[in-house]
Amino acid sequence: MNSSLKSRLDLELKVIGWVRSSIKSPAQAPKQEYEGAPDVWIDMEPAFKKAMHSLKPGARYLILTWLHQADRTCLQVHPRGNPNNPLMGVFSTRSPARPNPIGLHEVTLLEIRDSPPGLHVDHLETIDGTPVLDIKPCLKCDLPPP
Amino acid sequence: MNSSLKSRLDLELKVIGWVRSSIKSPAQAPKQEYEGAPDVWIDMEPAFKKAMHSLKPGARYLILTWLHQADRTCLQVHPRGNPNNPLMGVFSTRSPARPNPIGLHEVTLLEIRDSPPGLHVDHLETIDGTPVLDIKPCLKCDLPPP
Repeated sequence: MNSSLKSRLDLELKVIGWVRSSIKSPAQAPKQEYEGAPDVWIDMEPAFKKAMHSLKPGARYLILTWLHQADRTCLQVHPRGNPNNPLMGVFSTRSPARPNPIGLHEVTLLEIRDSPPGLHVDHLETIDGTPVLDIKPCLKCDLPPP
Repeated sequence: MNSSLKSRLDLELKVIGWVRSSIKSPAQAPKQEYEGAPDVWIDMEPAFKKAMHSLKPGARYLILTWLHQADRTCLQVHPRGNPNNPLMGVFSTRSPARPNPIGLHEVTLLEIRDSPPGLHVDHLETIDGTPVLDIKPCLKCDLPPP
């Protein structure tokens, strides 16, 4: 793709909310949400409150986050940080280290706060202060929580 | 969150590849991949070739795309573009119109091309020229394709 097309693209992310969590550092964070991740509040940016309309407590959603402390230059990793695991390309792993460190989390929405706007969700394994990028309904979320 | 913290975040996306598809405009694109989306090639940016290591033809992956023609200012939509459907907040829909138009696509990897690097995948509903942001293994991909 030529660079003039690329320069016309708007590739700047907007932060729609922020994770408020008891996990304060990557070392404390579980690798997956089913490995003991706590419930968290997402403090939503008021500018995006209208987009929260029709969210339903009890329903399952995908939360997309920006893992802002990840190494974006890393292309290969030992899965789970264990040097005994063979080196793999990051696209074959869920490592936060990758060119675009977008985290994908399936959660149950527990509670909606109106003012200031916020969402209480279960089991999110990112650290305190992680930016939130998007919320989507699960299309296959008749799956039970893990 | 204060603006000084936000200004220190690196929120610029990197394009890791580009969708090459027979779908040339949003009007031609199906709403979901199970509604007749074609197989496509993803032309990978050579800088990220090392991250393709260990991808396996036949396995299921999540492809994250940047739906670059979407309206990023839209916060509420009539689902499926049908005015008879009640207005909903975009976080309750899979509409491409949303603050960060990240597309999420579950595909089977059909074939890997070494040079120039590329990936042939089934059923991707985005238009020709769509930037690709990430590839992740499915964690629940013992699900059969729809």
